Amino acid sequence: MRQYSERMSRLTGSAIRQIMKLMSDPEIISLGGGNPDPESFPVEKIREITDQLLREKPTQMLQYGVTNGYLPLREAALEHLFRPKNIQADLENVIPFTGSTQGIYMILDMFIDPGTPVLIENPTFLGTLNVIKKLGAKIIPVEMDGDGMLMDDLEAKIKAHQPRLLYTIPTFQNPTGRTLPLERRKRIAELAAEYDVIVIEDDPYGDVRIKGTPLPPIKSFDTAENVILMNSFSKIIAPGLRVGAAVGAADLIQQMEKVKQGLDTHTASLPQAICAEFLMRGLLPDHLRTITAIYGERLDAMLQGLERYFPADADFTRPEGGLFVWVQLPGIKNTGKLLERAISECKVAFVPGTPFFLEETQGLDTLRLNFSSSTPQQIDTALQRLGGLIQEEYNK
Amino acid sequence: MRQYSERMSRLTGSAIRQIMKLMSDPEIISLGGGNPDPESFPVEKIREITDQLLREKPTQMLQYGVTNGYLPLREAALEHLFRPKNIQADLENVIPFTGSTQGIYMILDMFIDPGTPVLIENPTFLGTLNVIKKLGAKIIPVEMDGDGMLMDDLEAKIKAHQPRLLYTIPTFQNPTGRTLPLERRKRIAELAAEYDVIVIEDDPYGDVRIKGTPLPPIKSFDTAENVILMNSFSKIIAPGLRVGAAVGAADLIQQMEKVKQGLDTHTASLPQAICAEFLMRGLLPDHLRTITAIYGERLDAMLQGLERYFPADADFTRPEGGLFVWVQLPGIKNTGKLLERAISECKVAFVPGTPFFLEETQGLDTLRLNFSSSTPQQIDTALQRLGGLIQEEYNK
Repeated sequence: MRQYSERMSRLTGSAIRQIMKLMSDPEIISLGGGNPDPESFPVEKIREITDQLLREKPTQMLQYGVTNGYLPLREAALEHLFRPKNIQADLENVIPFTGSTQGIYMILDMFIDPGTPVLIENPTFLGTLNVIKKLGAKIIPVEMDGDGMLMDDLEAKIKAHQPRLLYTIPTFQNPTGRTLPLERRKRIAELAAEYDVIVIEDDPYGDVRIKGTPLPPIKSFDTAENVILMNSFSKIIAPGLRVGAAVGAADLIQQMEKVKQGLDTHTASLPQAICAEFLMRGLLPDHLRTITAIYGERLDAMLQGLERYFPADADFTRPEGGLFVWVQLPGIKNTGKLLERAISECKVAFVPGTPFFLEETQGLDTLRLNFSSSTPQQIDTALQRLGGLIQEEYNK
Repeated sequence: MRQYSERMSRLTGSAIRQIMKLMSDPEIISLGGGNPDPESFPVEKIREITDQLLREKPTQMLQYGVTNGYLPLREAALEHLFRPKNIQADLENVIPFTGSTQGIYMILDMFIDPGTPVLIENPTFLGTLNVIKKLGAKIIPVEMDGDGMLMDDLEAKIKAHQPRLLYTIPTFQNPTGRTLPLERRKRIAELAAEYDVIVIEDDPYGDVRIKGTPLPPIKSFDTAENVILMNSFSKIIAPGLRVGAAVGAADLIQQMEKVKQGLDTHTASLPQAICAEFLMRGLLPDHLRTITAIYGERLDAMLQGLERYFPADADFTRPEGGLFVWVQLPGIKNTGKLLERAISECKVAFVPGTPFFLEETQGLDTLRLNFSSSTPQQIDTALQRLGGLIQEEYNK
């Protein structure tokens, strides 16, 4: 018998990854993943950039790099990602890392002891929830409405629990697709300053905006250097590169650098440099227009399919971007069981809502649908089949 | 004031990285780093492989990958790295990761609670030592002679402390360049089986053998599935790729996969695929011949320079490979202070030995020299200057 650390007893594998293993059948239409559309990857540009980097800077691409990141990427992230969003920052405020998963891990590791109070949205991103659990935090869920966290509940829970951390995905939230309005963003920054709470603002989807007006990040209202904004290149260039970057207070960035030394010394140089070049060549705006045009058609197909094929009491979010729509089906007792039937009888997959919640008894009538990785026709077909199955369950 | 986790209070930045910051002067000859020779990177091959991968498998290179690693790399590591070393293993025993730093981090994280007894070589690799300290282990150093750990002391300390882990670099150890003889390797595997100790066998240098006969890894004698061998592509292909791979018991590999989900979801696909192709095309043996020929000349220059320019009582290791020579200078009270003079007066850098030890009072008369990243002429010049300075100190 292995004598693992206590942390390991609190670590569960991702339920979603288990579900995904059910889906090896290529006939299945999956609305279950969180993948961007591979057809839209800027392959030619990446190939050209990569070849040029290996010709012109072979040593920099292949030798050990620095832990605080490839300098041109820090500069490019500042200029092309952070400053345009009204964030006052300098180079000392920026650190790239191995996907925003690593960036979030570092902040959690830096602040969480067993018993440390941490606030989360409930439901929230499973990957982060699993690390928070593993570290043994006392997890406090904040109530949400259709626009995200409720500020009264947030303040009450800050007062009651004196949390060190708040983890939030304010724009096109995973799993709900919800977007926090401007006033609540300002309020979170105020509360973080007043009560000295570190806010992890996870923003992998904000730039994938299909329609509507971009909202400034919480970080742009941060006067107390308590908000750290996590950006990812996974949804805006390609996830296989595993590159993300944060902007935050210089002292936090320095601590992240120290933690990162032990995690992987530095992030692979070539993927960092590919992201840097992509930004510096000004390729991002056009690429975002391309992918949001594609995702817009898919989102429309999804919302139309939900209207057309799902029961009248189905409640679903209508996000203006991101990758996910969240559905509540008052007539379904357990969407996990529904999934089993959906896969075997309809060849359609989705993710049941429960794993995103703190408690296994929550969200039993909810599910998450992804619209980025299927065509409008596939989405329509999948929702028609799924809607039929749901109607059957309703009629039972 | 930030309220960091307890772990952070035990985390120190790398002393070596601080020292390296002193060395921005391009006139300095550095024997201080641990970098492979950038001139020897297989740039053309990597460029050709990369271009082909992005042409033929763009989606695989750019989409999310699996946490347990790019399948062709797992296969290639098994066939080209592990099985030729007499290791009985299958695919379920192999996991790639983001540099062996990450592989080691995962095992440490899996087994260390505050107070957990962990055995180390003393001196040992600083990066690992820092993570072990950060996790709050009770660190127990094992006595060494010129061939590495002493088996009597190892067994006595296992009996006395019942450690969960032993961390060892058996071949061309960092910092000492020492190599553990065959019988001790067998003995470690026996002790690990008898007392149920997990052995992290860190082997980034073993394939960089300049002369002499390769020794089988401890893992090849592991009958109780307690040894996990960590390999790295940093010294045999290129460190900027950040790819390593482990072979070990299937249950340990599965736990590593779970931990890795929270660390970075998966390792960047392109660097993994570059390493896989490099192995599958059979390029490694020739490349190793190329680099060991270069390093052989450099090692010779270093050993000759030490003979010629250093005091007669200087004791130094004579490794048959790797990157480092370890020097003890009985007439020097503090090699840290020597370094300051060496940089300012001789434009030569090295790493003082003390940071590699558990206690700050240890190894004050030792230093580590790197021979992989300077030419024979540079090494000769540097040692001549340094030898003169040391002689001055001896004559004081």
